[in-house]
Amino acid sequence: MKTKDLNITIAGGGATHTPGIVQALLNSIDRLPFSTLTLYDIDAQRNDDMYTIVSYLLKKQHITAVELKQTTDPEIAFTHVDFVFSQIRVGGFEMREQDEKIPLKYGLVGQETCGLGGFAYGLRSIGGLLEMVGFVQKYAPDAWILNYTNPETLVSEAVRRKYPQAHMLNACDMTISIEETIARNYGYDRKNWIPQYYGLNHFGWYTSIYDKKLERDVMPELLEKLKKAPMKIAEFNAADPSWQNAWNMMSKIINNFPDNIPNNYLEYYLYPDLVVQETDSSYTRANEIMDSRVKETKEIAANLRDGISGSYYDADFGEHGNYIVDMAISILEDGHQRFMLIVPNHGAIENLRADAMVEVPAYVGRLGAEPISLRQPIGDFHKGLMEAQNAAEKLLVDAFFEQSYQKALQSFTLNQTVPSADKAKKVLDDMIIANKGYWPDLN
Amino acid sequence: MKTKDLNITIAGGGATHTPGIVQALLNSIDRLPFSTLTLYDIDAQRNDDMYTIVSYLLKKQHITAVELKQTTDPEIAFTHVDFVFSQIRVGGFEMREQDEKIPLKYGLVGQETCGLGGFAYGLRSIGGLLEMVGFVQKYAPDAWILNYTNPETLVSEAVRRKYPQAHMLNACDMTISIEETIARNYGYDRKNWIPQYYGLNHFGWYTSIYDKKLERDVMPELLEKLKKAPMKIAEFNAADPSWQNAWNMMSKIINNFPDNIPNNYLEYYLYPDLVVQETDSSYTRANEIMDSRVKETKEIAANLRDGISGSYYDADFGEHGNYIVDMAISILEDGHQRFMLIVPNHGAIENLRADAMVEVPAYVGRLGAEPISLRQPIGDFHKGLMEAQNAAEKLLVDAFFEQSYQKALQSFTLNQTVPSADKAKKVLDDMIIANKGYWPDLN
Repeated sequence: MKTKDLNITIAGGGATHTPGIVQALLNSIDRLPFSTLTLYDIDAQRNDDMYTIVSYLLKKQHITAVELKQTTDPEIAFTHVDFVFSQIRVGGFEMREQDEKIPLKYGLVGQETCGLGGFAYGLRSIGGLLEMVGFVQKYAPDAWILNYTNPETLVSEAVRRKYPQAHMLNACDMTISIEETIARNYGYDRKNWIPQYYGLNHFGWYTSIYDKKLERDVMPELLEKLKKAPMKIAEFNAADPSWQNAWNMMSKIINNFPDNIPNNYLEYYLYPDLVVQETDSSYTRANEIMDSRVKETKEIAANLRDGISGSYYDADFGEHGNYIVDMAISILEDGHQRFMLIVPNHGAIENLRADAMVEVPAYVGRLGAEPISLRQPIGDFHKGLMEAQNAAEKLLVDAFFEQSYQKALQSFTLNQTVPSADKAKKVLDDMIIANKGYWPDLN
Repeated sequence: MKTKDLNITIAGGGATHTPGIVQALLNSIDRLPFSTLTLYDIDAQRNDDMYTIVSYLLKKQHITAVELKQTTDPEIAFTHVDFVFSQIRVGGFEMREQDEKIPLKYGLVGQETCGLGGFAYGLRSIGGLLEMVGFVQKYAPDAWILNYTNPETLVSEAVRRKYPQAHMLNACDMTISIEETIARNYGYDRKNWIPQYYGLNHFGWYTSIYDKKLERDVMPELLEKLKKAPMKIAEFNAADPSWQNAWNMMSKIINNFPDNIPNNYLEYYLYPDLVVQETDSSYTRANEIMDSRVKETKEIAANLRDGISGSYYDADFGEHGNYIVDMAISILEDGHQRFMLIVPNHGAIENLRADAMVEVPAYVGRLGAEPISLRQPIGDFHKGLMEAQNAAEKLLVDAFFEQSYQKALQSFTLNQTVPSADKAKKVLDDMIIANKGYWPDLN
């Protein structure tokens, strides 16, 4: 494995998260010495916007040792690449809007990665990610792919089936964001924490959070605080004010199920009716983001082309970029850092099927991810929820590979945000029309 | 084991199903030679009504070799007993009415054995059945208990935990009634059938129905018929016209999920919204039965006391009584007859937890039930549904033994008819009030 002059490619380079990842890479360039950074996207315009912005970011920080490239050609993007940071979004925010609005039409949760919106996105995303992983297998089979592409739980299952040999870590920044937000709200330092956590992606629970400096499990005191009043959103989520709803619901979950800090996404599974009540079905999160981050990014790029700079890139990017860059460093250094990763279960959770894709702590080194065993069975409430949701996910990936309408309907019916097979079928039938050209044909 | 002069006790002797069981016993008296039949009930009036009716039934058929007794004393009921037929209903139809109406108030399924109504009934029924099984363990530990007490899946789990040594078969007549109704509708003879079936109680699927005479699996042709038009209710269900809705919904299920004949109770899990829409929340099945079977029984008993007889007991009792009497015969004769029974899984379904109470084919002989292995894993759709529902059932039985409000709320939330923890909590809190004196105190 090369240890300097690394080539790094960001797949989905035109995404609004790119500057956060680039900034994290620049902060760590001593430990992850890269000389080429390639932005790869199928949308040349979006990619050029981000190229313009990242060029400015490099220039402003006087970085000259990094060659910045942009391309829409996978051969250029992946030949000789060492690390691929993947964050593609098949169908863009326009299709995300459909994912959110179609289920809402029937009174069901409309969300990016959870519920039927997430399943619709999954049937689009799997094809795109498999294609990208296929390119990496072709042009640079030894490269490491660090994957943030959503919905993680579905795409990682699909890659596991088609490219079991791929060098790939599937990561989600939700747990680190929860931890960072909790720590900032209550004056802790997350760097001292050793969290125990398990679940499916966007569907899990903390069982303890040991603080090395305080020398105690701080989860009981955090539960008390979170029960009494919701957290406030952190600066790094300020552009998406709907995060405040998420923290409000987290407090409600803890009031009813007080044993664990939940992943906030569980609100969609436990209180779908309340979430739907609070959702504006004519202006969803996709609209919010298209009208803020996406629009802003275009404007900044246009301004930069006209020689006008701005303060946008002094923003707080949160942990999103750092988290995945730290993973690359831990591979390179065989550093044994500990992350939450989405991995095949294989006994990590002893009383759950071996082939479930679960999210658990894992140590990362030169061999990739080595998940820890939880060393105890999980309780029936969490197991029951996870088994049903995991089966729904398996069926969706089956539907993709087998082009099976029956499996898709079973999957939609079993999704734990869905109260009825009748509604599942109506949403599925609408989504087939909306996703023409993106989904496989279902027979 | 005694082979003649058997003593048989019907626990819940005052129930309206008693004449059907008695008639089945009389039809089989040559193979199950009993000399004492005791009706045991905690309600002396109801028991006396049924005693009056059964006395008439014996007299009308010139049966003199059977001594008929009635008692409210468990010591009298169970001392020297050989077979106990259990069909108790803790709280009676008055509490069943609450089970049905409270969830309906919140737009949820209100049903006797499924959904939160079934769970409410479970928390009442477990205590009553454990008490009864305890009496049998005390007065006649070698007696066989043939259990029809609902909700089977919950009470059988509770008995498994508290009295693992009990000689008990847990049976449900739903599968035999489905088979009988299908056979009568389409002109088959059910006696030729070897059905393969698996699930939880009131929550399962046929995978094939081999007809020995026709020498083929008739399930594919039955699926086609059931898909095209719903069955008509059989004569033996004529008193409960709402059965027609059940057969209509079975046809709908098969149209959307065409691979298996489902247990019709799956309508409550797959289409809870449609079922609720069609339910009159002010006049439920409990009202229907109280106004028909229960009222009629009282009137017939009163008439008989006044010397007026009637034609009621020429009615078609269906397979309810025969099914459980055949089980007793199969034990007595070591007859290796095949029944659907509710048993601990222990690998019968290889990819489901060993300690789940499942409903599968079993051979019955002198050692009780010997379940067959399905010899193949079950698919993800059924597994996902069963895992979640089974976990909900485990949690409910935990809630009973641990008197845990938390476990009850988890259980109610996970019940697959329930779309939201918010509604689960509202129903639970109402039910705690309604079931005062019946449920354990939950803390």
